[in-house]
Amino acid sequence: MIAAMNDTSVARTLAGFASGFRWSMAPQETRRVLQLSLLDYCAVALAGVDEPASRAVRAMLLAEGGIGEAGIIGGGQCPARAAALVNGTCAHALDYDDTHFAHIGHLAAVVFPAVLAVAEREGASGPACLEAALVGYELATHVGRWLGRGHYEAGFHQTATAGIFGAAVGAGRLLRLGEDALQHVLGLAATRAAGLKAQFGTMGKPYNAGMAASGAVEVALLVAGGFRANPHAVEAFGDTHAGEGNSEIFADLGKTYTVQEVSHKYHACCHGTHAALEALTQLRRGGLPIQELAAVDIRVHPRWLKVCNIASPTTGLEAKFSYRAVAAMQLMGRDTGALDSFAGDPSQDAGFRLLCDRINVAGDDRLSDSVAQVAVRLKTGLQLQASHDLKAPQTLQSREARLLAKAGTLVGTAQANRIWQVIQAFDCGGAVKRLSRLLREV
Amino acid sequence: MIAAMNDTSVARTLAGFASGFRWSMAPQETRRVLQLSLLDYCAVALAGVDEPASRAVRAMLLAEGGIGEAGIIGGGQCPARAAALVNGTCAHALDYDDTHFAHIGHLAAVVFPAVLAVAEREGASGPACLEAALVGYELATHVGRWLGRGHYEAGFHQTATAGIFGAAVGAGRLLRLGEDALQHVLGLAATRAAGLKAQFGTMGKPYNAGMAASGAVEVALLVAGGFRANPHAVEAFGDTHAGEGNSEIFADLGKTYTVQEVSHKYHACCHGTHAALEALTQLRRGGLPIQELAAVDIRVHPRWLKVCNIASPTTGLEAKFSYRAVAAMQLMGRDTGALDSFAGDPSQDAGFRLLCDRINVAGDDRLSDSVAQVAVRLKTGLQLQASHDLKAPQTLQSREARLLAKAGTLVGTAQANRIWQVIQAFDCGGAVKRLSRLLREV
Repeated sequence: MIAAMNDTSVARTLAGFASGFRWSMAPQETRRVLQLSLLDYCAVALAGVDEPASRAVRAMLLAEGGIGEAGIIGGGQCPARAAALVNGTCAHALDYDDTHFAHIGHLAAVVFPAVLAVAEREGASGPACLEAALVGYELATHVGRWLGRGHYEAGFHQTATAGIFGAAVGAGRLLRLGEDALQHVLGLAATRAAGLKAQFGTMGKPYNAGMAASGAVEVALLVAGGFRANPHAVEAFGDTHAGEGNSEIFADLGKTYTVQEVSHKYHACCHGTHAALEALTQLRRGGLPIQELAAVDIRVHPRWLKVCNIASPTTGLEAKFSYRAVAAMQLMGRDTGALDSFAGDPSQDAGFRLLCDRINVAGDDRLSDSVAQVAVRLKTGLQLQASHDLKAPQTLQSREARLLAKAGTLVGTAQANRIWQVIQAFDCGGAVKRLSRLLREV
Repeated sequence: MIAAMNDTSVARTLAGFASGFRWSMAPQETRRVLQLSLLDYCAVALAGVDEPASRAVRAMLLAEGGIGEAGIIGGGQCPARAAALVNGTCAHALDYDDTHFAHIGHLAAVVFPAVLAVAEREGASGPACLEAALVGYELATHVGRWLGRGHYEAGFHQTATAGIFGAAVGAGRLLRLGEDALQHVLGLAATRAAGLKAQFGTMGKPYNAGMAASGAVEVALLVAGGFRANPHAVEAFGDTHAGEGNSEIFADLGKTYTVQEVSHKYHACCHGTHAALEALTQLRRGGLPIQELAAVDIRVHPRWLKVCNIASPTTGLEAKFSYRAVAAMQLMGRDTGALDSFAGDPSQDAGFRLLCDRINVAGDDRLSDSVAQVAVRLKTGLQLQASHDLKAPQTLQSREARLLAKAGTLVGTAQANRIWQVIQAFDCGGAVKRLSRLLREV
């Protein structure tokens, strides 16, 4: 016991926080943001069920059969391990799920599929499920920050490689595992953790999320069944996978909650374009006369120029990674939050091409990578400017309104409202099963 | 087509060999060695079914249910993905399965569980199954050699990390995938490939093998169902995972067969001790008078001293990693091929302790790591010497006799003979199912 108290290893620190955390410890606002992320997860996963990656994974799993422990989003039931695989893939298929910039990855698409599947399997209460999900979010972001940008730059997909640790421990909590067992969950997750950025742009990217969610359920179930691994393998994972290993980031565990810093996507395109779109929205709200537009200058951190600056996109997918395209679409009044806006070749529209020609994009390394500055010059010579920082705090009311609107666009207003009602009443009995049922009715 | 012909990438080279290979191309002796490895796989997996890791994985999978596509070694049937997970874990649970030194890993425990499960699912013929397994062996050893010792020293468990590529492509062959699709199988396997040496000494080590086998089935099934990934992600895997990247090793693909260099374990202890045990066997065959023994000097490559040189073991597991213990046991006439020989604390036996005290172990970096030299000094002053190289060619007859004897020790002579009969007649109809049935009857 004394030895354990003196153990300041990464594995012990994480397992200690995870086993001691209670839902009631988190501030009201933190809990609300997590519920909003759950709403967002449900909407993007439902919208993603017919993507090719989702269909391939679902077909494989439905052919396997097995007991209906947990719901498959879009219809059907299967074992929890399998449900996590397909639901994680669906949730990341559109790349429209939540992001944490310091974690350098997506959270909902790995944590929720694992936690919800195990919660449903175990008949867990709504609060127990949310508690496990919050543990999962906090552990995933902390492991992601501990692995650091060096891990990401080396070629690893933090969404999966860091995500599995959080999701596995969240699943382990629902299986009533104590501190020692949770350390073995982390240890076994370390040997299962994988996912390459080389899959970006392919069906392999959402698969990485599903794979991590399913692996998380697997290692948690195994440890619950008596399996034991190297309880310090999480440190070995950092050493072998270009982890930066800054353990100081664990000091804030349980003091501040990183889930509050989660960014939700309100536009169905690359996250790198969102700050510019938000800045443009401000200018449009001010009554920008499109006909009078002479030039639009967008300035962002130079890192983004390699990510989402396709100059002349000719497909909807390319448009998602093009500042000029998304800005032109928004200036034309198209809903950049709707998936349909990115169907087809945007360059077929002469008005679109004309607008694109007036938009200039430049890098500015004095800007943070969450910031964009947009300057608009009118034919009259008038200049208008706006900037937006994705990390700037949002009110809960604003987040809720925008996420409900996004969910409505993706799955219809009625369905979005039903889902949000169930999540808001997640402390009522049977909430986990009620949500699962709702997500199977498409 | 011309582009493909000029494509000399790792992924294309591997997929090209894999799709073009036919069972009839391999020399008779190569095919026979593969069949012997299959016999060995069956015996060690059957002997491993009650190990804690095997039981935990099997319990999880049996609780999931699902259709009986493939046999579970030791009893039951389940989906192919699940069968590969449990059978791979069983096959590596005793660490008694085949090894390839240049690959730096075990082969059978990853390739056979994947290939046999998919062969049974598909109703494949015996020769098609062996053809796929040989493709799997060759690809795994080549990827292992391409990743190189640097990958292993960095902390990766080649058995799993290289093994999944071979197993996945073997499974893909049985799903009738062509060259392009096999390249996607490799690409998707690259994002799934994982396994840490940090699990050595824990239940996580055999899990690594099962995980790789199951992952291999998963990625092959997904690609067969239309899933597409980055077809060059295998190269990205090398870059991200400390791969040495020596592509010259691919030049011998399909010319010589690395499966011939596979080492089978005839002793139920660490492979690092085997050369010394073989050298001792030679001396004992010459009629070594144990009572007259004054000293035994064992010389091996210094690398092994960190692996298997526990000076005074007090458990059976420790004895497996102790030159002195295994040498003393053999000098006492105990069967180092039997699992029972490593049950209990060997140091309780005074005769054993006395013998251990006379055994000295030293490193000698002029020796290859597959060689041991043993010098025995008798009380009369007479000196006897022997050496053994694990890489020295063995006759097929000798391999067969020793593997049959080992299998007999592990599963009983009658069962071993039945298994070997089925494998020898693998070109008869229904052989795959017949073998599966035999492995379920324990």
